[in-house]
Amino acid sequence: MRRLGIHSFCWTGGATQDDIEKAMEASAGCGFKLIELAYLRPEKFDLDRLARRAQSLDLDIAVTMGLPAASDVSSEDPDAVRRGEALLASAVTAVRDVGGSKLGGILYSAHMKYAAMPTDRGRQNSVEAIARTADIAQAAGIDLVLEIVNRFETNLLNTTAQGLDFIAATGSDHVRLHLDTFHMNIEEANPAAAIRLAGDRLGYFHIGESNRGYLGDGTINFDLIFDALLDIGYDRDITFESFSSAVVDEGLSIACAIWRDTWTENLPLARHAKAYIDIRREEAARRRATVSRA
Amino acid sequence: MRRLGIHSFCWTGGATQDDIEKAMEASAGCGFKLIELAYLRPEKFDLDRLARRAQSLDLDIAVTMGLPAASDVSSEDPDAVRRGEALLASAVTAVRDVGGSKLGGILYSAHMKYAAMPTDRGRQNSVEAIARTADIAQAAGIDLVLEIVNRFETNLLNTTAQGLDFIAATGSDHVRLHLDTFHMNIEEANPAAAIRLAGDRLGYFHIGESNRGYLGDGTINFDLIFDALLDIGYDRDITFESFSSAVVDEGLSIACAIWRDTWTENLPLARHAKAYIDIRREEAARRRATVSRA
Amino acid sequence: MRRLGIHSFCWTGGATQDDIEKAMEASAGCGFKLIELAYLRPEKFDLDRLARRAQSLDLDIAVTMGLPAASDVSSEDPDAVRRGEALLASAVTAVRDVGGSKLGGILYSAHMKYAAMPTDRGRQNSVEAIARTADIAQAAGIDLVLEIVNRFETNLLNTTAQGLDFIAATGSDHVRLHLDTFHMNIEEANPAAAIRLAGDRLGYFHIGESNRGYLGDGTINFDLIFDALLDIGYDRDITFESFSSAVVDEGLSIACAIWRDTWTENLPLARHAKAYIDIRREEAARRRATVSRA
Amino acid sequence: MRRLGIHSFCWTGGATQDDIEKAMEASAGCGFKLIELAYLRPEKFDLDRLARRAQSLDLDIAVTMGLPAASDVSSEDPDAVRRGEALLASAVTAVRDVGGSKLGGILYSAHMKYAAMPTDRGRQNSVEAIARTADIAQAAGIDLVLEIVNRFETNLLNTTAQGLDFIAATGSDHVRLHLDTFHMNIEEANPAAAIRLAGDRLGYFHIGESNRGYLGDGTINFDLIFDALLDIGYDRDITFESFSSAVVDEGLSIACAIWRDTWTENLPLARHAKAYIDIRREEAARRRATVSRA
Repeated sequence: MRRLGIHSFCWTGGATQDDIEKAMEASAGCGFKLIELAYLRPEKFDLDRLARRAQSLDLDIAVTMGLPAASDVSSEDPDAVRRGEALLASAVTAVRDVGGSKLGGILYSAHMKYAAMPTDRGRQNSVEAIARTADIAQAAGIDLVLEIVNRFETNLLNTTAQGLDFIAATGSDHVRLHLDTFHMNIEEANPAAAIRLAGDRLGYFHIGESNRGYLGDGTINFDLIFDALLDIGYDRDITFESFSSAVVDEGLSIACAIWRDTWTENLPLARHAKAYIDIRREEAARRRATVSRA
Repeated sequence: MRRLGIHSFCWTGGATQDDIEKAMEASAGCGFKLIELAYLRPEKFDLDRLARRAQSLDLDIAVTMGLPAASDVSSEDPDAVRRGEALLASAVTAVRDVGGSKLGGILYSAHMKYAAMPTDRGRQNSVEAIARTADIAQAAGIDLVLEIVNRFETNLLNTTAQGLDFIAATGSDHVRLHLDTFHMNIEEANPAAAIRLAGDRLGYFHIGESNRGYLGDGTINFDLIFDALLDIGYDRDITFESFSSAVVDEGLSIACAIWRDTWTENLPLARHAKAYIDIRREEAARRRATVSRA
Repeated sequence: MRRLGIHSFCWTGGATQDDIEKAMEASAGCGFKLIELAYLRPEKFDLDRLARRAQSLDLDIAVTMGLPAASDVSSEDPDAVRRGEALLASAVTAVRDVGGSKLGGILYSAHMKYAAMPTDRGRQNSVEAIARTADIAQAAGIDLVLEIVNRFETNLLNTTAQGLDFIAATGSDHVRLHLDTFHMNIEEANPAAAIRLAGDRLGYFHIGESNRGYLGDGTINFDLIFDALLDIGYDRDITFESFSSAVVDEGLSIACAIWRDTWTENLPLARHAKAYIDIRREEAARRRATVSRA
Repeated sequence: MRRLGIHSFCWTGGATQDDIEKAMEASAGCGFKLIELAYLRPEKFDLDRLARRAQSLDLDIAVTMGLPAASDVSSEDPDAVRRGEALLASAVTAVRDVGGSKLGGILYSAHMKYAAMPTDRGRQNSVEAIARTADIAQAAGIDLVLEIVNRFETNLLNTTAQGLDFIAATGSDHVRLHLDTFHMNIEEANPAAAIRLAGDRLGYFHIGESNRGYLGDGTINFDLIFDALLDIGYDRDITFESFSSAVVDEGLSIACAIWRDTWTENLPLARHAKAYIDIRREEAARRRATVSRA
């Protein structure tokens, strides 16, 4: 692992500049080294100031987003695809301007519950849009990672194997996978095997519990996850994510179907997540060493 | 367990009388003793003939459904609630006419990805509609069970605790819970503990894998599930459920977001499910006996 | 849980008074509230001084032992039984004199790899010796707990069910079970179910990993263990135990077959165990609360 | 997997020729393709007749043994080493004569609870004895596999890593590991990782439950085991092993500390083991295919 991060929605819905700055401070205060932000519209936020704030706190920034339905690059409608591609290009610029290292999330389709199967034409539109976005991102020095999410949040890429296949179709070396334990728990027949399948194509990793609440408050076997990340020598960023109705962003809360408060206070949540991930990663490393020691 | 069943959508989308009869024969042929059907509109199907067919095959029938958005009893719109309640009443009648033993599923809300939090008023409407439907069901000799499903398929009842609370609000002894391992894997902090919490209020149980495919092709620890069912002395029906894009019912496939073929041939799927559940239940019973034997 | 303890063999083989006092200081320094000691022969140690040292450090003391072959109360030889019973009586006195709260371990047989099945007569001798020892312990205000251990360390009580049966045969309300996750991992068909079976008869609990090394360096599912302890409302002491060839007590290392160094430095081991148990217990409590919250 | 086998001690203590022949018939009757026998002294058994019986039943034969203390090749006593080596050589001959394919078990030390740490000199004696035995076995066309067992049954090779190190020291390409889930459950920090570590050096594999009883009656996560065997492309034999006090071989029952009847009837045990292993292996293969399918 390079840096351990936390999603800003653990702290705030993020409507204002001040919200984001406070979230940065809280993240750094808990020992996290990266903050994940939703796409920040440059007209609403002072990105340069956020960049300086993050730098002074020694925080890296990852930006994630899901496309809106009207800008769905997996659509068969050329206008929607064009709007989506423009949005992706502006997002790459915003990531660069805010001093971030990567753009991730559901970049290849809308972030919504679809009402129809994906089509070949739509998929091809998405492949081409992502290929061109990859070139833009590479030129800007920004990593591009595609988040594999569950069936209720996209109809296009629900598994690691689908993601690898899609990346191969883009023909770009610059696109990597963004995996997330919450989604893998629903879609992968074997999450640890999926991580091993991804191997070096894994570019970003989300740690989230099966009910999106506290780590430990669910069914995910994180020991197998951390063992697999060690097996592939994963050395990129890991970010903790949890959503509760206690913190609301209108769009994301609806897209993610957050109806319950899995927690009400975020500081103990964040501290626990940091301690949990640290101790489990340490245990996975020790377990690996013990197995190999004659 | 009373009877082991299988959902008809493992066999067919169920558009015609003949489809349903063939599904019954296939279910019985694999050794299942119950078939779960979606709500059958009396004007489209010869229910009496289905009842006789099931009886001759020694198959019990469970009917499940989710309300359409226009007939959502958890709505704040009195017309929608009225339509929903009428639909539930007619479904009870159809279950009785087809010789079935129970009505289950998402009876308390629409079966869809909501775009807003539930409201107090909507919940109260639902409680009252279910209370009245319970009286009708009880008079008809039909069990009424409410399926707890994941956040993407309703916004009202996602956990066992919410379900118990809702049932208590109805004031009816006739309403029970319908739990499902696929949904519990997403929503429950501890599925086995949730089963123990449900206890005697558990009226029906669905066995489905985390990706809705083959049992064993996912992350659910079924040993803990079968242990918990023994702990509460569960003696009602258990039904296997799996969805693949290989068998399509327009409405259900969309509501459940089935984009992939987790399998293509249903006979080996059904036979495996029967063998899997039989051997695991046998093992759970033996494990329980072994622990207690001095 | 009342107090979280640590076995003194994590710190020292315990040959001298000074060794024991240093182990007490190290235990308290890591935040443990109890230290487990092997039986201390009164002629070799200043028990009164140890009692004062423990009190000043706010440390409770548990004493555990296994009988030597020559003093095996499960023997058919009346002389061996008599010697064993005398040893148990003197151990109770030593626990009282060192200010301890309980006597545990393999009190009902020798601590060794047996070379024959237990006999009815030997078991009856053991039952009677423990019944009389229980009266002595009760009069002295000392808890008496019988440790259920794996097949290679006794032939008499390998499972919880056997232990409960044995305790019932003593007719004493003062005898309770002492369970240990290392041993349960070998002998119990379902360790969590065994804890639930023990219920209020559980008097003491050992947390040890499957290879007796670091927690996390093995196969035990501790989440299920802590869930089960909450289910029975366990409110007595829990002690962490780990053995390595890095710390050697001649007798115990041989009896427990410690041939490898699962660790070499004990301070990080003890700190990790404290953090591990604290965080897992906290998670189990939260998981339980989450499941029940509507 | 090449062939699925069963240990003859599921059927019989094996004192007579007739016992062994009946065990062969029972094994083949349940669909097993290999029987594991303890070392058969040529003066007591008609090996040629056993070979023909096995062949007619299409059963392969594996022979396993543990050295007696007086013939311990890991001893510092040259006489004991010489006796052990002679015993190994005669065992190779017996395997060949009975038409078997491999010799396995605790060939590198006595099969007993040791009372002292292994010594460098003793280990070196064992390495040399095994190296010479390997040459003899290779010349005879017999596979030689070393069983890694728990601390209570040898003091020399308790982990896969120790076994690989030992094999490397022999300098022989003909020696492979013989792993066993019962022993791994006690000794390995991560049994699946240990299987991956063994890789192509894995020559034989025992499936046994944590309490040595019915599969499913214990704590071992066999899904992880079968996944790991697929990961390394394991294509040699797998044998089921279970011991109960219901079937007794004086020596082995004592060495393995079998004090309880984990079962009383062996036919349902064997049938269940066959079904269990078949269904789990099938599920592991399907899980692997599903993860990889885009």
